[in-house]
Amino acid sequence: MSAGATPLVGIPHAELEGRRERLLAVVREQGLSGYVLFDESYIRYFTNFWFLSTERPVVFAQSASGDMVVFVPEFEVERVRAETSFAVESYPEYPGTEHPMLLLARVLDELGVGGMIGSDQDGYPGILGYQGPALSEVTGATVVPLATHIEGMLACKSEVEVELIRQSARWCEHAHRLLQEYSRPGATEAEASLRASHEATLAFLESVGDGYAGQLASADGVQAGYRGQIGRRSSWAHAIAHNIRFEPGDVLVTETSAPVCGYNAELERALIVGPPTDEMRRLFDHAVAAQQVAFAALRPGVTCADVDGAVMRYFEEHDLLSNWRQHTGHAIGLRNHEAPFLDLGDATTIEPGMVFTIEPGTYDPEIGGFRHSDTVVVTPDGIDILTSYAIDIESLTIPL
Amino acid sequence: MSAGATPLVGIPHAELEGRRERLLAVVREQGLSGYVLFDESYIRYFTNFWFLSTERPVVFAQSASGDMVVFVPEFEVERVRAETSFAVESYPEYPGTEHPMLLLARVLDELGVGGMIGSDQDGYPGILGYQGPALSEVTGATVVPLATHIEGMLACKSEVEVELIRQSARWCEHAHRLLQEYSRPGATEAEASLRASHEATLAFLESVGDGYAGQLASADGVQAGYRGQIGRRSSWAHAIAHNIRFEPGDVLVTETSAPVCGYNAELERALIVGPPTDEMRRLFDHAVAAQQVAFAALRPGVTCADVDGAVMRYFEEHDLLSNWRQHTGHAIGLRNHEAPFLDLGDATTIEPGMVFTIEPGTYDPEIGGFRHSDTVVVTPDGIDILTSYAIDIESLTIPL
Repeated sequence: MSAGATPLVGIPHAELEGRRERLLAVVREQGLSGYVLFDESYIRYFTNFWFLSTERPVVFAQSASGDMVVFVPEFEVERVRAETSFAVESYPEYPGTEHPMLLLARVLDELGVGGMIGSDQDGYPGILGYQGPALSEVTGATVVPLATHIEGMLACKSEVEVELIRQSARWCEHAHRLLQEYSRPGATEAEASLRASHEATLAFLESVGDGYAGQLASADGVQAGYRGQIGRRSSWAHAIAHNIRFEPGDVLVTETSAPVCGYNAELERALIVGPPTDEMRRLFDHAVAAQQVAFAALRPGVTCADVDGAVMRYFEEHDLLSNWRQHTGHAIGLRNHEAPFLDLGDATTIEPGMVFTIEPGTYDPEIGGFRHSDTVVVTPDGIDILTSYAIDIESLTIPL
Repeated sequence: MSAGATPLVGIPHAELEGRRERLLAVVREQGLSGYVLFDESYIRYFTNFWFLSTERPVVFAQSASGDMVVFVPEFEVERVRAETSFAVESYPEYPGTEHPMLLLARVLDELGVGGMIGSDQDGYPGILGYQGPALSEVTGATVVPLATHIEGMLACKSEVEVELIRQSARWCEHAHRLLQEYSRPGATEAEASLRASHEATLAFLESVGDGYAGQLASADGVQAGYRGQIGRRSSWAHAIAHNIRFEPGDVLVTETSAPVCGYNAELERALIVGPPTDEMRRLFDHAVAAQQVAFAALRPGVTCADVDGAVMRYFEEHDLLSNWRQHTGHAIGLRNHEAPFLDLGDATTIEPGMVFTIEPGTYDPEIGGFRHSDTVVVTPDGIDILTSYAIDIESLTIPL
């Protein structure tokens, strides 16, 4: 693979600092004393600090004057010191003899964060049995929601972010080629998916070298599979796996995932096991055509709703409304789905640097589902398609 | 593997109905009109309905009189009808031209759920960029929190649940044996983990047969790995992976996961690559002894804090407080961590049927971390240890 010929460079410190400065500008503009983040993805976005998100709260806070602190369980302190340059405060354990939120309130007070505080949410979410008081309750502060603003920041990617997503796309393609090769009548989806994902992950990790730190678990890497979208179940856009064996005549919808320093592209294809019927070919061709409609509609200045509206008109004009199941696509980046959404109800104006999946699909409960998903970045005058994989039915037919 | 000699039977319908009846009893007792669940794990617990949790809300509601509804995006309707017997209501898409929460409010009104509503949380959580109004806002109802009560229900396992966790333990052991075999100096943690997990998952899926539906993704199954707990990083209880190569002298801490119909055991071991030093042996032996202290302390009638207190006394008496990093353990079941916690600050009284991990560890930043985790069920007069794997240093030393 050429993708990893040079060692991976993640988000530079200056870019992380720039993100925090942009959030601080909002904080100051609103007269807040600082901000507090509880969401794992948001903390990663503003700090590049990676951690296991569990019932033990991990919190990042910055005062309006710029002072920062990471608040973690005691056993994370040594790792925070080794892997970051942030000041660290800790609590002994969760739930502990004193609730971590009470300790957090004192830490924020010392940081000068109180009175009016910006936050992604009013306290730590109920992950894995966590329970505790709200941020507003323990601080007595007014908590001003910042999630909408933060989502807007995440939506517009920098050049470095787009490059990481581009590299993710290369690995999605590699895993998808393996998946297609290993998906044969008689094999199960788990067999094909495990083999493709295993080989693709090893190839990826070999290419990025021993210094790579963009994993949470040992075996995290490049994945390709079906998630149960096999045969008639492919007409269920969010099927789940059922240890299914491929059979001639099955329609399949794939999925892939290849986080690179945490950033994701998405590549999905409709496949057919054996020669397609005329009706399969018809729905397949409409899915391909609807995707082209979206590619053509997506550019700076239009809204997300405009793009989905163009695709909906294609469905209407070709009498396909009974085959419609889901909107055109979603933003993607540090999370596999994120806002904004290419949806009739999303009025967000498209800007250069936004990255979307484009994945309208056609579905028939008696035949199956047909959906190609490609990842695109919005450029000043249109889009650049980041994923590269055959879209024609001949290339996507699995021989018997 | 003998674990799958007979096909897997998940939670029987009568048991699911019993769970709902117990929650309804609380709802009626508090004079509520019904309850609404937004949390994926809770919905699975009360319905056995499995789904992908995304920015598109999935909600389960039941009125005080017993009427039930699943509220899903339109594309899930056919699957809900095929896989469950629940009444289903839907919204076209998220965000959609009308927010799904507004549609939910009308569905709840038709169900007779309003005024005073029990709920796990006041609205859908901010998953993958979701934003929306609170349940109380769209219904005008008073929302009474039920999460504490639900967590209490989850904590006490039935015989069927314990049996599923017992089967999970068999597969954790199998994957762990493979992991230990494939972990050799010069190999990376990803190589060992991918190979062990790949083989264990295929063996598991073969044993449970084509009818098995307890997966979300194609390759979901049995996992074993290290999550970066290698060498000195093993002294970080929540290290994350860094594509590390095993070297002689490394101390390792493993982890495993093997959901069986969604239920989990946990098995972890401290391993040493090559002959242990005297200091490694000393910390290893203390971790083993502290685990025995917890086994002896855990029985019905004592509190979670009592068990952790007994372990803390062991640390104090042996001058090990500088080697302490985390509490004794946590409950486990449908989630890999759940309440209650074997922690000094958790006053929950231990009851028969509770399932815990027992995993006190000893840590030294210059040497590494030593932690065995076993899963136990509380019996009327003590505990039954569900995981079975060597605990002695000779068995857990990897030859050079």
